[in-house]
Amino acid sequence: MEIENAYITLPKGFIANGVHAGLKPNGNPDLSFIGSDRPAYVAGVYTRNLVKGHSLTRSISIIKSREQVRGIVINSGNANACVGTEGENDATAMASAVASEFGVTSEEILTASTGVIGSRLPLDKITEAIPALVKNATSSEACGHLAERAIMTTDTQPKEVAATVSIFGKEITIAAIAKGSGMIHPNLATMISVFTTDANIPQNVLQSMISENVKDTYNRVSVDGDTSVCDMVVILANGASETPVIEMDSEEYITFNEAFHALCFDLAKMIASDGEGASKLVEVEVNGAKTPNDAYLCVLSICRSPLCKTAIFGQDANCGRFITALGYSGADIDPDKISMFLSGLPVYENGVALPFDEDVAKEKLSEHDILIRIELNDGEYNDRMWTCDFTYDYVKINASYRS
Amino acid sequence: MEIENAYITLPKGFIANGVHAGLKPNGNPDLSFIGSDRPAYVAGVYTRNLVKGHSLTRSISIIKSREQVRGIVINSGNANACVGTEGENDATAMASAVASEFGVTSEEILTASTGVIGSRLPLDKITEAIPALVKNATSSEACGHLAERAIMTTDTQPKEVAATVSIFGKEITIAAIAKGSGMIHPNLATMISVFTTDANIPQNVLQSMISENVKDTYNRVSVDGDTSVCDMVVILANGASETPVIEMDSEEYITFNEAFHALCFDLAKMIASDGEGASKLVEVEVNGAKTPNDAYLCVLSICRSPLCKTAIFGQDANCGRFITALGYSGADIDPDKISMFLSGLPVYENGVALPFDEDVAKEKLSEHDILIRIELNDGEYNDRMWTCDFTYDYVKINASYRS
Repeated sequence: MEIENAYITLPKGFIANGVHAGLKPNGNPDLSFIGSDRPAYVAGVYTRNLVKGHSLTRSISIIKSREQVRGIVINSGNANACVGTEGENDATAMASAVASEFGVTSEEILTASTGVIGSRLPLDKITEAIPALVKNATSSEACGHLAERAIMTTDTQPKEVAATVSIFGKEITIAAIAKGSGMIHPNLATMISVFTTDANIPQNVLQSMISENVKDTYNRVSVDGDTSVCDMVVILANGASETPVIEMDSEEYITFNEAFHALCFDLAKMIASDGEGASKLVEVEVNGAKTPNDAYLCVLSICRSPLCKTAIFGQDANCGRFITALGYSGADIDPDKISMFLSGLPVYENGVALPFDEDVAKEKLSEHDILIRIELNDGEYNDRMWTCDFTYDYVKINASYRS
Repeated sequence: MEIENAYITLPKGFIANGVHAGLKPNGNPDLSFIGSDRPAYVAGVYTRNLVKGHSLTRSISIIKSREQVRGIVINSGNANACVGTEGENDATAMASAVASEFGVTSEEILTASTGVIGSRLPLDKITEAIPALVKNATSSEACGHLAERAIMTTDTQPKEVAATVSIFGKEITIAAIAKGSGMIHPNLATMISVFTTDANIPQNVLQSMISENVKDTYNRVSVDGDTSVCDMVVILANGASETPVIEMDSEEYITFNEAFHALCFDLAKMIASDGEGASKLVEVEVNGAKTPNDAYLCVLSICRSPLCKTAIFGQDANCGRFITALGYSGADIDPDKISMFLSGLPVYENGVALPFDEDVAKEKLSEHDILIRIELNDGEYNDRMWTCDFTYDYVKINASYRS
């Protein structure tokens, strides 16, 4: 059951907090901590960008070498990337400061950073802020929300979700936060997102679950085709619900996984909807492809096309652009079999444009949620992806991101 | 020798004209004709988009089946694409009307269309305009310029180039026109461009020459990553200079090819510079890649990145975005070996951001021509591509293209 007022500390045994350490010039929270009162199994998926931020590289190496951690510290406003060995040291120093305050070893604290690439972290400001950050971390709703606010960059909306499931006769909670909202593209675990749960799930099961669940959720969101060097999705499972271990592919696994997937799904849509400068959420559905990859190439091509995305922003039913994007997608398709529906309105059939009422199309495109459905009529495979429109505000935000 | 005041009818034996047939609501010329007073050898390269406009499909099939043609008719304002068999008939009808006026067979007249996809050509308007279009076509400068203006869509500048070369002791002329300026991306012959020359070059030699020359010119321009269904580059060689045949790989071939390549190069840069909404011309140079494809993937990734291109628009030296784009390019690179120069200013070395004077960077970025040079230090292969910045005007133009 999804919880309406969600925050990251809903699962038992988790505390969190967010403070302004001084990385963001606007005074907003920029340093976030999420901790568990006991060791939590951990698993994650990470950007496939060959360039990786130092905080992320450190977390990946920790998750490879140990099954459990006690928490994560995340800063926004600075990516801690491309600054050399000093960046590695800075990540470790940030973790050590948290660990020392929280009474654990630094290897038990994951690190993540998001923001501008190529500048040293202002370590003084961060270490100065950490004692209060950790000391005042609680499981309260206020603290939970602060932890999310402190990881946001250009996001205009906080992204917090949670659900409860009944497993082994007990209520188990999963919660998650995420940040977007630019440099978002599939197959690279396209954002920073943290899940907490009080379920008792070993690392290997957790890893399999998260790897599977990102496929049709986080990895099906594109804001701009760019993929960050800092992206990760991690889950911490601390077992504080005191239920038995959830085994691979058990009935409990299925129940938990269903709730987990629903939350991934919701966050993915939230990220697309709050894409930089976005005024619309666009779902692109492609059915009837020859292979799964052909279906994927089709959704990807449309979601990445500036021409499709500016047309949606302009509420202009310039549907030829969508057919064009399919044609150069690299997918093996037959142009003469393509049909297309614009939020239900048939606009192409067998590769030929249909006459349609421009006023009806305009009305469909004036909605916030737009559904582009493509029927390739050439096979059995489907795919789906979310994106947003391409607006003046996208240009505005990104023309002056650092200032 | 390049000619300053260039137009398409400079080579001997060519005439041209452009008129307003009524496809463009703003009254600008929208129907263009280029004819040769004798059969001209023809060769071309075409979009690799699986979806192809009907006028283009017709031209491809003609060039496959015959070596010589007498001219080409091009309309702007309507792509004649995705309208079914009627679109094929419309293309043939347009050619027939021209052929009949020009006194040749319709198979000797190529067709091209550019504009909105999915609407029938207004054939009545076109056939009504054709008699005057063809009858008043001359080799004059005014007519030459009109032929270019009539193929422009969102271009803000006409794109006309010409050169003379001395071959077999005679002066031979090559001229070319092109239109951009959106839906531009490599490897799909990304625009409509027509070359005329009075040289005497057989079709197979011409084909080899054009296929080779587009590689590092037309196929190295990206405006927005979208690739049209109508793109083609064709060359007509009518031999009116009355010089001997230019044989494959002869001395004359090399001389001619050099001039041809220089014109392709100039037009490619003009197209990037006049990309939709562009305020800057951006040259991206990548050196030291392991393979040619790695070098290509790197230039492509930067030229396609909305984040890189908005940063350039904002004159913001947010160089981490360029390193990020290399990291997700798919190229086999070593992030720790990358150096980057922003119009000569060193900004990254061995994958680490260098301190630089922001005022100097701002000044470099305030120029119209920007050079992003990447040294991968990992091999011997280089590549280069041109793009433009991503601006409010790109969004503006494309949010309301049809209205």
